[in-house]
Amino acid sequence: MRPVDLIVKKREGGAFSAAEIEFLVDGFARGEIPDYQFSALLMAIVLKGMTPEETAALTQAMIRSGEVLDLSGVPGPLVDKHSTGGVGDKVSLVLAPLAAACGLRVPMMSGRSLGHTGGTLDKLESIPGYRTDLSPERFARGLREVGFAMIGQSETVVPADRRMYALRDVTGTVESIPLITASIMSKKFAEGAEALVFDVKCGSGAFMKRREEARSLALSLAHAGAELGRKVVSVISDMDQPLGRAVGNFLEVEESAACLQGKGPPDVMELTLRLAGWMLVLGEKCADPAEGESLARARIADGSAWRTFLRNVEFQGGDAECLSDPRKAPRARLSRALAAREDGFVERIDAYDVGAASVILGAGRARTEDRVLPAVGIILLAAQGDPVTRGGEIAVVHGEEESRVEEALRILGTAYRLSPRRSLPGPRVLEEIEGR
Amino acid sequence: MRPVDLIVKKREGGAFSAAEIEFLVDGFARGEIPDYQFSALLMAIVLKGMTPEETAALTQAMIRSGEVLDLSGVPGPLVDKHSTGGVGDKVSLVLAPLAAACGLRVPMMSGRSLGHTGGTLDKLESIPGYRTDLSPERFARGLREVGFAMIGQSETVVPADRRMYALRDVTGTVESIPLITASIMSKKFAEGAEALVFDVKCGSGAFMKRREEARSLALSLAHAGAELGRKVVSVISDMDQPLGRAVGNFLEVEESAACLQGKGPPDVMELTLRLAGWMLVLGEKCADPAEGESLARARIADGSAWRTFLRNVEFQGGDAECLSDPRKAPRARLSRALAAREDGFVERIDAYDVGAASVILGAGRARTEDRVLPAVGIILLAAQGDPVTRGGEIAVVHGEEESRVEEALRILGTAYRLSPRRSLPGPRVLEEIEGR
Repeated sequence: MRPVDLIVKKREGGAFSAAEIEFLVDGFARGEIPDYQFSALLMAIVLKGMTPEETAALTQAMIRSGEVLDLSGVPGPLVDKHSTGGVGDKVSLVLAPLAAACGLRVPMMSGRSLGHTGGTLDKLESIPGYRTDLSPERFARGLREVGFAMIGQSETVVPADRRMYALRDVTGTVESIPLITASIMSKKFAEGAEALVFDVKCGSGAFMKRREEARSLALSLAHAGAELGRKVVSVISDMDQPLGRAVGNFLEVEESAACLQGKGPPDVMELTLRLAGWMLVLGEKCADPAEGESLARARIADGSAWRTFLRNVEFQGGDAECLSDPRKAPRARLSRALAAREDGFVERIDAYDVGAASVILGAGRARTEDRVLPAVGIILLAAQGDPVTRGGEIAVVHGEEESRVEEALRILGTAYRLSPRRSLPGPRVLEEIEGR
Repeated sequence: MRPVDLIVKKREGGAFSAAEIEFLVDGFARGEIPDYQFSALLMAIVLKGMTPEETAALTQAMIRSGEVLDLSGVPGPLVDKHSTGGVGDKVSLVLAPLAAACGLRVPMMSGRSLGHTGGTLDKLESIPGYRTDLSPERFARGLREVGFAMIGQSETVVPADRRMYALRDVTGTVESIPLITASIMSKKFAEGAEALVFDVKCGSGAFMKRREEARSLALSLAHAGAELGRKVVSVISDMDQPLGRAVGNFLEVEESAACLQGKGPPDVMELTLRLAGWMLVLGEKCADPAEGESLARARIADGSAWRTFLRNVEFQGGDAECLSDPRKAPRARLSRALAAREDGFVERIDAYDVGAASVILGAGRARTEDRVLPAVGIILLAAQGDPVTRGGEIAVVHGEEESRVEEALRILGTAYRLSPRRSLPGPRVLEEIEGR
């Protein structure tokens, strides 16, 4: 096999065998196939696509490029969720303890804030003392003792993905459904998950702006999962407007705590309960997602989900007191309200703009080397459908620097669209695809 | 400007400005844009194409990457021809002295044998003593004193093409009409040609097998030439069967000598005279190619074309005697005849097979580091339309090694197709495209 012949094969629209994909990924990971050949291959894949069989083979080859977490000592079922990222997306913080309280084990390997979207690790680390750099042994112990644990991607798991992503980033080859699918799936299965629920977000605040793109990725994830013989469900959810009322690291931790105590905003609860329902179906705790939703609801009502979260915070070194005592919570130096310019109703809040405003405040990263501030962010006092009066407060911006707060307020002002007529929020869950 | 943004632009089918192309080529030539970005860009160009404006800008940027031969001391018009390469294609050896004898100056920068096709430099160097590594000064002097001169591509002319081709070769990005166009045009204009006739070959023995491919390249060359404000004509010629009766370096020199003395095979003469006719049109020596053909025919009849060739051989250090005295000519150690298996007529001789057989004999190169043998090759005694009798000789193979001669004979046997019915050769010149 010569790399150049395989590049030509893909350029001409051909489909690779599993052996060819293994040869390519292995050669790239070992440094035997140079970057300049691999980037030409990546561009051919971007423009000519890959079949579900190829995507599954790519996923497996990527998993084989590194270590796979050994969670054999953890009693299953091991079920995880992955979100493609959004604005105000604190679902992982609520869902992991909730699913654990229902009897699943949730080995959650998460990412950091990127672009206008937040990152689960940054949110958790806004809890003073909380550490996400657990050793594999401690991660497994957290799963056994608490039911879930949260870590970042290690250097040794799927190194091919790390190298491949770095190359894709500088060669214009990020936007490819099969490459995104294999990148997501390889990391999730290498972390030890047996079954997976994908939350593919769609709309202004998501990476996939259009419904067809989101559906393509959801289908690709479901098909590749089925090819790999794994239980996979893809849920397409609406990310045109921010999820919940809080955007920012510790602000979202507080909203997550509220959700776990039965006081969360309806949109966060709708999506989280549905994803929990599907996780319980995949973990064979129930027959259908509606039954799973009921089980999950009961674990919130009896307080066990909330207690599971607190146990995790303690297990990962976090100060749980700041969650119960508001005086101990991290707070930003400044807070300024945004006032409505007219009477009416909130017609829409653009999620991308809200995400951009939160990044300016320091809640996210414009560049990977940026430091994230724990306490800054935005509280949306009025959301879609809510009535507003001219001069009344519709949002509050929390920040550390005057100029950034002003800039965030300006952007937030353009994010809000008001209307004399009331439009009610639609469902967050738009579509569900089972990988069978 | 960031390379990655330009890669994405091309990936999405956008067209580059001249400034963007200059940035990319200049950055690549200086080593500022790394190979892995440039190869992704090349793949996007292969799959998304380039407009004639982009191709012209690419050509200019490539020319600017290195030195341009200064032929200002040579009285014009400076007109050259470029062939995309074929089997038995000795046209340059006949055409250059012929056009020079008609009053043009022909600054011919040629290539070497590649794959199944021959190379003009290898053919000329089969004349004992002939050197193609002339200094720029000597090249210019040859043009002034003889009317034409033949050199290879130097290191300093269009270095971007050299780097780009090396990268294309290993990244599956060779097959691209705009990239091929810019590669050809940049070298030809950097060598000092003012006007150009392209012989785009088409068929089994050519790089472009199909007529539509050849037409695409012919149009691209004509359009990009017009964009650059240069006079350009593309001729599409048939290369489904070998050109002439001789294939091999010195064997083709001898056939070229015969052509220049009015004793050449009709197909070589048809194509050469037509190309000469167009060169004379571009050099403003006549109004149309038919008139140019007459002028050229007269220069063969009066012996001046042949004398011009002999002057060039002497100027470039070759032993002209071996052209007049057969005892001094290089000859291969072995020669074996191929016999017809049945009575009938030659229906077709596959040019690719004949080229492959000649490479096995050592007339061409399977790899760039291979050494070429001057005297080996094939004489086609019977060509399309010729009657043959069972057991009669239809071709002769000249070689240095027994096993290679046997292998060449075997391949040549499959190249010949005989038929009970006679089919006459069609025209070599299939189509003509003026770049206006």
